[in-house]
Amino acid sequence: MDWSRDLKPAAGADGAEILRYERQRSSIDVNALSTHLFGKVYLERLARVSGILQKDKIFSKANQANLSRPDRYVLGLARGKRMRQLMDEHGWDNDDLLMAEYLIDDILPYHLHMSLFAAAMKEQCSEEQRQYWQPKIDSWEIIGAYAQTELGHGSNVRGIECEARWDPATKEFVIHSPSLTASKWWNGTLGRTATHAVVVAQLMLPVGKDGSGQTRYESKGPRPFIVQVRDPKTHLPPESIIVGDINAKYGYAPMDNAYCLFRFHRVPHSALLARYASLNPETGVYTRPKNPNSVYGQLTRGRAFIVLNARLVIARAVTVAVRYLSIRRQFRDQDSHDSSAPEMPVLDYSTVQIRILPLLATAFALHYSGSAMWSLYERTRAQNSLESDNAQLAELHTTSAGLKSLATDLAANSVETCRRAMGGHGFGGGTGLIQLNNDYLAKPTVEGDNWMITQQVSRFLIKKVAEQTANPDRVVQSPTEQNLKSYLSNRDGQPHFDVLGDDASIVEAFRWRTSWLAYKAYEAREVQKRPWNSILIALHKLSRAYSQSILIENFFDATRKSDLRREDAEVLKALFRLFSFYTIDAEAREFQTSSGVRPEVLDTLPDRILSLMEQIRPHAVRLVDSFALPDFLLDSAMGRYDGRVYEDLFYRAHVINPLNKLTVNPDYRSEEIVKGGLGVKQVLAKL
Amino acid sequence: MDWSRDLKPAAGADGAEILRYERQRSSIDVNALSTHLFGKVYLERLARVSGILQKDKIFSKANQANLSRPDRYVLGLARGKRMRQLMDEHGWDNDDLLMAEYLIDDILPYHLHMSLFAAAMKEQCSEEQRQYWQPKIDSWEIIGAYAQTELGHGSNVRGIECEARWDPATKEFVIHSPSLTASKWWNGTLGRTATHAVVVAQLMLPVGKDGSGQTRYESKGPRPFIVQVRDPKTHLPPESIIVGDINAKYGYAPMDNAYCLFRFHRVPHSALLARYASLNPETGVYTRPKNPNSVYGQLTRGRAFIVLNARLVIARAVTVAVRYLSIRRQFRDQDSHDSSAPEMPVLDYSTVQIRILPLLATAFALHYSGSAMWSLYERTRAQNSLESDNAQLAELHTTSAGLKSLATDLAANSVETCRRAMGGHGFGGGTGLIQLNNDYLAKPTVEGDNWMITQQVSRFLIKKVAEQTANPDRVVQSPTEQNLKSYLSNRDGQPHFDVLGDDASIVEAFRWRTSWLAYKAYEAREVQKRPWNSILIALHKLSRAYSQSILIENFFDATRKSDLRREDAEVLKALFRLFSFYTIDAEAREFQTSSGVRPEVLDTLPDRILSLMEQIRPHAVRLVDSFALPDFLLDSAMGRYDGRVYEDLFYRAHVINPLNKLTVNPDYRSEEIVKGGLGVKQVLAKL
Repeated sequence: MDWSRDLKPAAGADGAEILRYERQRSSIDVNALSTHLFGKVYLERLARVSGILQKDKIFSKANQANLSRPDRYVLGLARGKRMRQLMDEHGWDNDDLLMAEYLIDDILPYHLHMSLFAAAMKEQCSEEQRQYWQPKIDSWEIIGAYAQTELGHGSNVRGIECEARWDPATKEFVIHSPSLTASKWWNGTLGRTATHAVVVAQLMLPVGKDGSGQTRYESKGPRPFIVQVRDPKTHLPPESIIVGDINAKYGYAPMDNAYCLFRFHRVPHSALLARYASLNPETGVYTRPKNPNSVYGQLTRGRAFIVLNARLVIARAVTVAVRYLSIRRQFRDQDSHDSSAPEMPVLDYSTVQIRILPLLATAFALHYSGSAMWSLYERTRAQNSLESDNAQLAELHTTSAGLKSLATDLAANSVETCRRAMGGHGFGGGTGLIQLNNDYLAKPTVEGDNWMITQQVSRFLIKKVAEQTANPDRVVQSPTEQNLKSYLSNRDGQPHFDVLGDDASIVEAFRWRTSWLAYKAYEAREVQKRPWNSILIALHKLSRAYSQSILIENFFDATRKSDLRREDAEVLKALFRLFSFYTIDAEAREFQTSSGVRPEVLDTLPDRILSLMEQIRPHAVRLVDSFALPDFLLDSAMGRYDGRVYEDLFYRAHVINPLNKLTVNPDYRSEEIVKGGLGVKQVLAKL
Repeated sequence: MDWSRDLKPAAGADGAEILRYERQRSSIDVNALSTHLFGKVYLERLARVSGILQKDKIFSKANQANLSRPDRYVLGLARGKRMRQLMDEHGWDNDDLLMAEYLIDDILPYHLHMSLFAAAMKEQCSEEQRQYWQPKIDSWEIIGAYAQTELGHGSNVRGIECEARWDPATKEFVIHSPSLTASKWWNGTLGRTATHAVVVAQLMLPVGKDGSGQTRYESKGPRPFIVQVRDPKTHLPPESIIVGDINAKYGYAPMDNAYCLFRFHRVPHSALLARYASLNPETGVYTRPKNPNSVYGQLTRGRAFIVLNARLVIARAVTVAVRYLSIRRQFRDQDSHDSSAPEMPVLDYSTVQIRILPLLATAFALHYSGSAMWSLYERTRAQNSLESDNAQLAELHTTSAGLKSLATDLAANSVETCRRAMGGHGFGGGTGLIQLNNDYLAKPTVEGDNWMITQQVSRFLIKKVAEQTANPDRVVQSPTEQNLKSYLSNRDGQPHFDVLGDDASIVEAFRWRTSWLAYKAYEAREVQKRPWNSILIALHKLSRAYSQSILIENFFDATRKSDLRREDAEVLKALFRLFSFYTIDAEAREFQTSSGVRPEVLDTLPDRILSLMEQIRPHAVRLVDSFALPDFLLDSAMGRYDGRVYEDLFYRAHVINPLNKLTVNPDYRSEEIVKGGLGVKQVLAKL
């Protein structure tokens, strides 16, 4: 008889009751705030798609963490098939599909087919190629991957080794990996799943013979080729291709990231994707690419999407933390003289608030900048101006790089910060954050390493300072130029913005500090002519300051234009101030030295932050409710909406956990490991 | 034919050659430095024990990351048995056993038996109990666990719910869990492995009857009981105990952390561990415990060990990063005009150095303070003074709390910092850091949560300031008191220590800042009478400052007393300065506002740090070599001693990875998942 079923949490530890109380003490209109953040269309889609997925056992997350990596891949493949079937059944559009991927919350082995492969083919195929390939891509008749990075080559695309030599005799390209480091590497979906890949290789054209009669080749730079990598029947690669999965990683267990080597593998002339650059098969004449800006556009889009997504990662970590830490009790208040007083909710400790509530504010900050950037991207694209080199695009590209770096750092760190704030249970499986963390930690590296890409931002700003310094009377083209101009004409003064008294001054203080750092960078590079490598750290700081400035501006605009009720708007303002003061306090010396904020004011910030946190605390649970993250996504005992934390933790241990089916023999002299089951020999066989 | 075997890394990417070059360019005496750090005895033990373990296939780490969690536990059990057999075979002593555990680098399900259970029994048993139990513990005839924390109760031991009611009629204790949150939770080794446990329960003694004739009980606080939890034959628990594993966690996959509920479970009088507190079974008279200081000593020991271990965690992350990043090339120098110049080693970028080299210095900083604390603990214990309340013990306890918090934060963050610095491959399985990270992230929480325990440090310092302020002429008892006294008598002056010119001044600047913060905390609490909760964040900063001060002091002492050759000692000094300046720069405003360091000096620190990193860079590989971490421990393609990074990454993908044995059917319309193998139905069955 399982008598544990009769047990309930102790009085005072009833999470459902506590969350009811927490929701009663705030009057925030959760629906209105959710709609303000995400819009009705998104929320409707969320409800509709999650309703469908939850009914399908294949998407159950209950036992996922207990599977081996090969089983995780196999499960991912089965889920990918089912998702595609559901797409057909329900007539899902692309946004529905993205929503499904988000809610399934486990990378699918088909992912690169749907994303990078499809995008590259769309972008790089000639009209004729597109007509041939697009139907096969849409119907999943072929499954494609994108093979660019190599074992020895990542960010520096020009350095890739894989070659495609043109053979005019047979009118074929010969794709070849000249060394081990030339092996394609990391290419998702290619390891086990794909039938085809866009392979990026150095296009090598013959340019005569050398002294010994060997053909000499000249590289035309990396170009994309569509290559069939597996047989449609056997799903095995040809002899001239060695391809496989690179083994377990930090995260993305279901994804088959690939290694792939080519040995004089021949593909027809039509394999060269020819929208932008083509080779005349008869004459061997090569027409150069003319597409730098569209690649620019793709990159910007990818980064804008990452920034937009970062708010949801923080929102998720904070939702779990706020709900659990409201419920969790620990110790009585030190200053309480009542020895029978109940223990304090952990979220009432200032040392816990300082880790969680600024992150709650950060989720809002990222939301407004993510949305602003995304709509700027959509607008620019709609004007069809991605192809042209204009100032707005250059600034958007810069902004996207800096914000990608800042946003993914903030989001990646937020998960671990929340986890640690949750103490013991934060290390357990009940957080629902383990896999999120493992997967998300890729983001600071992909689509431009977070430290590397900040150079772009700073290079842009140094150029702007140089232009402004050379010609102080020029007409400014953008807010950034305006800020620099204003700084340059006032920099001998002592601005000391009144950040405590006036929210607009907060924005000014951030702009001032950015311009101050930009000018210092300009001086170091352009006046003192310092080596680039010696100023990289300062440039990274400049990029952060610039990006923080953007977050602050957009957040401030949102507090002014908001469609919310007055009382909800007041909480939003408190969140804006908390985010601002927390950020200033963390970088206080820069604000002091730049003369942006007075030292005495900086000294008062910690207390200001405390009282803002006190103001926000009663609304914390309703604020995270407004992020609208369904339990199906959270998969978290500690973050579940109804607060039944302890019941769910116990259920996951006592009912779900497969390990409890094993009874073992702990006697160290015995070769028997599982009672009546496997012994040391079988264990060794698995190694 | 597997033609990939003929391939080698491209010219310029031969890691073995590059590490040879790196080792040639520095003259550091690696053996001498290793011996300086670890001593001959340790290094001999390391070589001897790793030699034995490497020969045993059960300790092979090659496929560990691909196993399911139940298989990880089963493997852990098999490994634990084998380790114990080796101990018998080779006559290992306790230090050998600790070394074996360290090198196996995978928590064993027997771990709590060997550590906390054995220690608790040793500490809490009466002489008679010890004579009965010790042989069974030593021979592993019983396997024990330590069951203190509960589902609803962690740090606050007084709050635990589990009860042990004394029944004078039968002379038994009745152990009972009155609610779900009373379930024991987290208790390692208890989930599946243990036969016995030390169960901490509120000792409840009858004190008469209430109005309705029910016996009333009074709690005597939490006491330890030895309880048999599973049958020696069947290994199943009795009806009155429900026990199992809590399911997958962030790390420690092989450990069976437990939930455990008791339902009026009866144990004999002898179950109460009676060294410090006992109950007369005839009279029911209870003798109170008299052991606060020994618990104190245990805690201090645990924390000292964690601090000592933290250096090895950082050393490991840095070893992998330094070796790989010396080998990895990316982009040419921006300022180079030679377009055929080779790509730069990633470790030459200042933005990479700033993440890795200060950590390298931190490993040394933690080493000297860890060793100092450990020997202070050993010395205090040898003087048998752990039982008495003396000033040295109180300060050691305080120091251990603050350093535990700081050291585990530094170490836990170091792994992720190094991982991110390694870019794409940093996210792969070749780092050898995935499991280390997952496991180590428990450390900021266990043995006193890193934010919570800093209160102890600050409370101690506030008390010291109060004593000094009340009686300025008192004789100082410790260096901390001396520092506070010196600050209090000079605090109106402007000390501005010459940190650039004189290493001893660095120590003074850190002491000054600590005293300044301590005095501010004293004023807030004792003069302004601020609520404890409102100053907790400031107290956390104070504890950090105090602990950093200790790291700096011990590191500085080491640079003066070192037994190293002059040139090696110079590198050690550079490391000391790098650690110091990096730490000051990170908290620059505190040093400025406390008047410890002039603003103009603070402004020059980034350039000082750059030139120190330049000075250390050529020695980086030899410095990490001196950490003496064997390849068997590192299990890292990227950090291997011989530099064959790319060869090993490819081997792990192409030869080891079990996923590549599966050929799949990617057609989404098909129920077949693995070709000729399992289909959707079998996948569903695993969920």
